[in-house]
Amino acid sequence: MTIIITAFEQSPDLGQGQARDMRVRWALEEVGQPYDVRLVSFRTMKQAAHLALQPFGQIPTYEEGDLALFESGAIVLHIAQRYPGLLPDDGNARARAIAWMFAALNTVEPPIVDLEVAEYTEQDRNWYAERVPMIERHIRDRLDQLSSRLGDADWLDGAFSAADLMMVTVLRRLEGSHILDHYPSLAAYMARGKARPAYQRAFAAQLAVFTAGSR
Amino acid sequence: MTIIITAFEQSPDLGQGQARDMRVRWALEEVGQPYDVRLVSFRTMKQAAHLALQPFGQIPTYEEGDLALFESGAIVLHIAQRYPGLLPDDGNARARAIAWMFAALNTVEPPIVDLEVAEYTEQDRNWYAERVPMIERHIRDRLDQLSSRLGDADWLDGAFSAADLMMVTVLRRLEGSHILDHYPSLAAYMARGKARPAYQRAFAAQLAVFTAGSR
Repeated sequence: MTIIITAFEQSPDLGQGQARDMRVRWALEEVGQPYDVRLVSFRTMKQAAHLALQPFGQIPTYEEGDLALFESGAIVLHIAQRYPGLLPDDGNARARAIAWMFAALNTVEPPIVDLEVAEYTEQDRNWYAERVPMIERHIRDRLDQLSSRLGDADWLDGAFSAADLMMVTVLRRLEGSHILDHYPSLAAYMARGKARPAYQRAFAAQLAVFTAGSR
Repeated sequence: MTIIITAFEQSPDLGQGQARDMRVRWALEEVGQPYDVRLVSFRTMKQAAHLALQPFGQIPTYEEGDLALFESGAIVLHIAQRYPGLLPDDGNARARAIAWMFAALNTVEPPIVDLEVAEYTEQDRNWYAERVPMIERHIRDRLDQLSSRLGDADWLDGAFSAADLMMVTVLRRLEGSHILDHYPSLAAYMARGKARPAYQRAFAAQLAVFTAGSR
């Protein structure tokens, strides 16, 4: 059954691969499943056909036969539960990996997204210079705790899993900032994720959309 | 095997049940599993023993024999996958319910938490009055989309599931605000969730901690 995902027709980050389809592409590359991509414009995303797939007008979505899913976390989890390669076999280790997926999305990502939202919507406000350090402090609290837990391990809990895939894509959102400079172990962790062949294939595939579009 | 969860020793919201152990209590009540509660103080939560269970120093945690989990989303999903009653049997419907759990936590909850964080940390800043409407607009965008999708259905996707449990607890965070006044169908949806006997048993159990402590 063909897997079809959606992605931005035009890359908002000029091919840096921060859009959330990157997580799904990476997961599919890790488990060796081919997929098709349907590109959507910002206008199309808000129209009824797309809203039927994604009630909040976002990407990515995932279609496979009768199944239609949204939310990158849910899609990666579905792929990881359906195809071997992204979750441990042992039931307890599997549940812990899923807990780390939720932690990446619910505990680590929100303050990072707050920083991005402030950049977009508050940069011209007179409070911006005061707000940014408040958000950064919140991010650093999370990174302190995350790096404490990671220690000198390669991955969050044993072998590489969907947990690391998710956490690495969350940390990547900090690439443009100076914050990760203070967390060499997290920067190295992110680099390990990005060095995986599956990551590189996924990154190249999303970049190709942009370079093709800018010809 | 006894299930042990953690919860706040002192209720930060005076027993309103907004702390995230409420989600886990509700899930356990829905599937009919008894559980023990270990109460932790704000100080204990930041100490090594608790951090070993919850790397970010939060509640709830979940212990069951050899298994230790954190993140309310992951814990509710684990309970829903382990015991019948919170997820549909059909594989596709199950994946969709899980997608809604992620949507509740990753798409609907973050702007609501932003509003709470602003209340705690920015109320004395001169920009607070300008920032609140910006956050509220973001929340309303999400609620517009959510109420469009819900339509006049009772639950998000067929029968009540862990998706609704999660979404109702997220919407409950708006109970103190005027925002839900503009969404009668979401207010009714939340009320349907709160009317469930399992919700009421869970609520009473978390309230008993507070009333016992304030004697």
